[in-house]
Amino acid sequence: MIAVLKRNASQEDKNKVIEIIRGENFEVHPIQGVEKTVVGVLGDPARRSNLKEKLQTLGAVEKVVLISDPYKLTSWNFKQQKTVIDLGDGVKVGGPELTVMAGPCSVENRDQIIETAKIVKAGGAQILRGGAFKPRTSPYSFQGLGEEGLKLMAEAREETGLKIVTELMDVEHIDVVCKYTDIIQIGARNMQNYSLLKEIGKLDKPVMLKRGMAATIKEWLLAAEYVMNNGNHDVILCERGVRTFGEETRNTMDLSSIPLVQQLSHLPVIADPSHGTGRWELVTPVARAAVAVGADGIMVEVHPDPQNALSDGPQSLKPKNFQLMMDEINAISKSLHNFETKERKIAYA
Amino acid sequence: MIAVLKRNASQEDKNKVIEIIRGENFEVHPIQGVEKTVVGVLGDPARRSNLKEKLQTLGAVEKVVLISDPYKLTSWNFKQQKTVIDLGDGVKVGGPELTVMAGPCSVENRDQIIETAKIVKAGGAQILRGGAFKPRTSPYSFQGLGEEGLKLMAEAREETGLKIVTELMDVEHIDVVCKYTDIIQIGARNMQNYSLLKEIGKLDKPVMLKRGMAATIKEWLLAAEYVMNNGNHDVILCERGVRTFGEETRNTMDLSSIPLVQQLSHLPVIADPSHGTGRWELVTPVARAAVAVGADGIMVEVHPDPQNALSDGPQSLKPKNFQLMMDEINAISKSLHNFETKERKIAYA
Amino acid sequence: MIAVLKRNASQEDKNKVIEIIRGENFEVHPIQGVEKTVVGVLGDPARRSNLKEKLQTLGAVEKVVLISDPYKLTSWNFKQQKTVIDLGDGVKVGGPELTVMAGPCSVENRDQIIETAKIVKAGGAQILRGGAFKPRTSPYSFQGLGEEGLKLMAEAREETGLKIVTELMDVEHIDVVCKYTDIIQIGARNMQNYSLLKEIGKLDKPVMLKRGMAATIKEWLLAAEYVMNNGNHDVILCERGVRTFGEETRNTMDLSSIPLVQQLSHLPVIADPSHGTGRWELVTPVARAAVAVGADGIMVEVHPDPQNALSDGPQSLKPKNFQLMMDEINAISKSLHNFETKERKIAYA
Amino acid sequence: MIAVLKRNASQEDKNKVIEIIRGENFEVHPIQGVEKTVVGVLGDPARRSNLKEKLQTLGAVEKVVLISDPYKLTSWNFKQQKTVIDLGDGVKVGGPELTVMAGPCSVENRDQIIETAKIVKAGGAQILRGGAFKPRTSPYSFQGLGEEGLKLMAEAREETGLKIVTELMDVEHIDVVCKYTDIIQIGARNMQNYSLLKEIGKLDKPVMLKRGMAATIKEWLLAAEYVMNNGNHDVILCERGVRTFGEETRNTMDLSSIPLVQQLSHLPVIADPSHGTGRWELVTPVARAAVAVGADGIMVEVHPDPQNALSDGPQSLKPKNFQLMMDEINAISKSLHNFETKERKIAYA
Repeated sequence: MIAVLKRNASQEDKNKVIEIIRGENFEVHPIQGVEKTVVGVLGDPARRSNLKEKLQTLGAVEKVVLISDPYKLTSWNFKQQKTVIDLGDGVKVGGPELTVMAGPCSVENRDQIIETAKIVKAGGAQILRGGAFKPRTSPYSFQGLGEEGLKLMAEAREETGLKIVTELMDVEHIDVVCKYTDIIQIGARNMQNYSLLKEIGKLDKPVMLKRGMAATIKEWLLAAEYVMNNGNHDVILCERGVRTFGEETRNTMDLSSIPLVQQLSHLPVIADPSHGTGRWELVTPVARAAVAVGADGIMVEVHPDPQNALSDGPQSLKPKNFQLMMDEINAISKSLHNFETKERKIAYA
Repeated sequence: MIAVLKRNASQEDKNKVIEIIRGENFEVHPIQGVEKTVVGVLGDPARRSNLKEKLQTLGAVEKVVLISDPYKLTSWNFKQQKTVIDLGDGVKVGGPELTVMAGPCSVENRDQIIETAKIVKAGGAQILRGGAFKPRTSPYSFQGLGEEGLKLMAEAREETGLKIVTELMDVEHIDVVCKYTDIIQIGARNMQNYSLLKEIGKLDKPVMLKRGMAATIKEWLLAAEYVMNNGNHDVILCERGVRTFGEETRNTMDLSSIPLVQQLSHLPVIADPSHGTGRWELVTPVARAAVAVGADGIMVEVHPDPQNALSDGPQSLKPKNFQLMMDEINAISKSLHNFETKERKIAYA
Repeated sequence: MIAVLKRNASQEDKNKVIEIIRGENFEVHPIQGVEKTVVGVLGDPARRSNLKEKLQTLGAVEKVVLISDPYKLTSWNFKQQKTVIDLGDGVKVGGPELTVMAGPCSVENRDQIIETAKIVKAGGAQILRGGAFKPRTSPYSFQGLGEEGLKLMAEAREETGLKIVTELMDVEHIDVVCKYTDIIQIGARNMQNYSLLKEIGKLDKPVMLKRGMAATIKEWLLAAEYVMNNGNHDVILCERGVRTFGEETRNTMDLSSIPLVQQLSHLPVIADPSHGTGRWELVTPVARAAVAVGADGIMVEVHPDPQNALSDGPQSLKPKNFQLMMDEINAISKSLHNFETKERKIAYA
Repeated sequence: MIAVLKRNASQEDKNKVIEIIRGENFEVHPIQGVEKTVVGVLGDPARRSNLKEKLQTLGAVEKVVLISDPYKLTSWNFKQQKTVIDLGDGVKVGGPELTVMAGPCSVENRDQIIETAKIVKAGGAQILRGGAFKPRTSPYSFQGLGEEGLKLMAEAREETGLKIVTELMDVEHIDVVCKYTDIIQIGARNMQNYSLLKEIGKLDKPVMLKRGMAATIKEWLLAAEYVMNNGNHDVILCERGVRTFGEETRNTMDLSSIPLVQQLSHLPVIADPSHGTGRWELVTPVARAAVAVGADGIMVEVHPDPQNALSDGPQSLKPKNFQLMMDEINAISKSLHNFETKERKIAYA
């Protein structure tokens, strides 16, 4: 940690800063610069949060810069091997093969989910997505089928052999969701619902944590840290676009976050171009880009009849477009096979 | 609702659009423009959400524009009188008098909360703020005293006669928080935690709903709509800054949201300049601005000894600065007394 | 154009709106909705801007929604064939082959630019980039070599056969820049420098127009419209990232803007992952993504010795990394060859 | 400057970093932290920009943190007294009295500008605003009357005694604009048009520099630094809102930027609530907030007949609303008179 003192800080101010740091049992390294004094602070990073705020309250302190990363369990420092989540039956997330999660926004009825499952299975997806509990902006929108929807997803799994991912919105429904799903999805709006994250952290079930719509990379990894710190280390991150001034797309897909997170963390990262764009015509190009940038997988919305979907029809792919997307991303994935883009060590200059 | 067709939409496309609209029992009003066709759609706004998404899936439809507002219970249309929330003992939110909520970020111990309560009471605040359950970005930061903190706040209420506002983070703690608090605070990170909002909606306890850090005005009002739709109409809105590219302040205080919300809704709106800026030197100027813009109240962090606060010290006012702020906002409030700024009817041109 | 009236608009208000529209010689189509009245307005889109603002001044008008696109010359409606800019010697932008522009941020000296030109030529680039007039955030930073730098670029062209692209910052330097360059670059900070755009529009020289850092797609196309409206139709668009709350990268690369612009406009669009990310480790992954999303080309910064670059060293690729990037994007480009991703007609549902 | 080394940096890496720093004639202070090494760098801040980029190209360097501020002439360090710009006839910007600049968006004709000038004079404004050269997003919108407009503004000045502020868009029109105006306005879109800023810097005429719509405080002050560095020290800053995800207002008014800039710089700062909100109903509340937050003045759009304005009608105040706004901001200004809000020294804790 580095504390930068204001230009006009007096000797007395400096002494006070030093005294406070020592009072908290940190080591002090002051450097007198041309215009300002900076004070290096050495000690246990886990205890620094308090000291940081304490120093910031001082009028003589201009800013405090953190040096050590705030995340531990999510970082390469904690674990030097990429996390691969094994869902059984050969389905893995984070391994050399691209993982594809596809399906409707919401489970609507048996025919719809079974038909979609067959389509995405045929196209090469390994995991079926589908919402039974839906977070909707308006209380007057369709809120999902609840457990009935989960049962239908389980049926679709039996029919196709696909694994299942579905959203969990609250602690109350943990048991019912875990009874059916293979991966628990935590949505963007709940990325900082810490009470929920702590409970999820106690489960023995993989979690896919979507990035909040205004979350920094740091906040996203710290949300994963909440889950891991409670014991559950099977976390998949999912970039689904962030909110910007852009008015033409539902969100702005931040694809550079994917290689950035891969530099910082051993956790797998997938991309959701359906929510990232909100427009089906853009889903396939952005899915291609996600694979090219190095994502460990993608999640897309597919509906046999988007026009009659109960939610997110505008961003759902029709079966033939899903197939086209699969062909294209497979071609890209294959073309990069010899380059070891993900394994590449970031070489020093 | 207005559907705009693409320039190259064929007659067949138009017929299909019309057929779909009629199939959902809406009335159709096509207008053939110079370059594009638009189709006016008339019918029950509550049913339009499905139709909108259905139309957006059509390749021939460029966009769908909603005309009616999505909110009902929060709007002036539902209720023509400003909502005033009466907390008893003469303390009201939304009435002619400015409401001031002040106190520490976190309750830390008996002395700290009692001392702060006395200071803010003496300065003219009516409500004591203080966190017992804290949503922290890092799992390694201080998470609050829990029920012990609530008990200490209740003690401070007994000593001073102040009312209490404190944050609720999850359904699990509803009972314990309600047992002590006068107002339940829902934090920015939980603004779209719909499961929590629904439960809060069933209570007979005022709620203060903070704006999410990337929430539009519409999403904020729809979050309030979730609470009201479940029966609880005592909702206070709180602007606490939004996330932008700005790097010098913790958030960017969006003060124009306050008169904007007041045009759209009968609910009281207050401002939180402490979280809005993150820097104590900016709290007083922004508090003045909030009162001048027409806020129904303000919430600020005050700590007898910010340097030793367990959280948010850098944005907490010291007692003497709190007093100065109170003097200044009272002077502004008084200076506007004769202008009826809030009662003013927005006159037609 | 659609004018939406406020819920409480009176019959008198409606009459006034209609009278104003007719007074401007537009046709009126009122539709009485369930909650609000909307008024369809038909007439020459070129004259609508005034009428729009006039209607917005009325207290009874809630909002005015434009239906026709504001751009003309940049749209597919004006020209049904993709614009291909032929720079001679077989170098084209917007054709079936990927265009690669590469070189240092700034021209620094003869050795540096000639060496870099040879490297990027060998790697397969067709165009050499390099700044002679530099827009720097601080007046105390290196501002470029001026005409001396342009002469060195021309020398590098002679040596290698590469074409040249370089930035023009003002009207004053049009002649000197045009004397040497093959493509004029207009930087992000000047995207809305309309005086400059108008002058560029009078030249017979291709222009590459970078997206402003907070420009919407509409504003970007309208900036191109300024150039085209003055006669110069050889415009290349360049996505270089937008400004968001993200703090880990210099900008946030908005890759979905590329297919979006390709839907709206016949102009070629390229991507600049160097400025888009600001970090060399992210340049190659994002370049791959740009090619996969369908960009007509990419522009990257390459420096033989980034550590001693006078500007933008941190985002410059070293020669061996440039070669690796070229191999990877060529592989992706080839893998998509059979899919006709750019030619694909967006099919109706 | 502080260089933070990556966790896995080797001793060789560290030696190289130190060697580079010393090679540039800076002093080195390494501190070995618990997890990472940081290296303090001491030396002339004016030379550090190169060294910073050089260090950032090294794979072993995680980040470089600047300690000294990049601005010089704009800072309190350069000048310890608030800049007051004296326009003659008792009109000053930056002094104890609030400066009000008011007038139409565009000069349209003699009657309009003379009438508006009389209205704003009567209301208490000291300076008349009005555009003769207009930066419009679309090339098809009204572009201003040019010199004819400037002549009409000069006539209005003669009639009323008001001073004049008008926008300059390019170097070409410097002479004609300077011939008539008292203050040159540089618009948000030209805030980083460095060629223009440099020329303006050579003039003996006050400049009002609007904040760019995505400019950080640092970039804004550095733009002012471009002007001052060329000799012209009479710079007024103007906050006019920034671009965010907000969709209800034209921009998001960042009022906390005003006290923030006042902490960093001796230059006067005014606020433009007309562009900041884009909606006349919000102009008065935000003008009140701007005065309360401590702005040195405000600039607002006033039109005798907004409905027939050629530009920005929707955000223009009608005469009676302008008067109301003046009464309210004067009341607030007076109420703060005894608090010395601007003179207040930011006390140490």
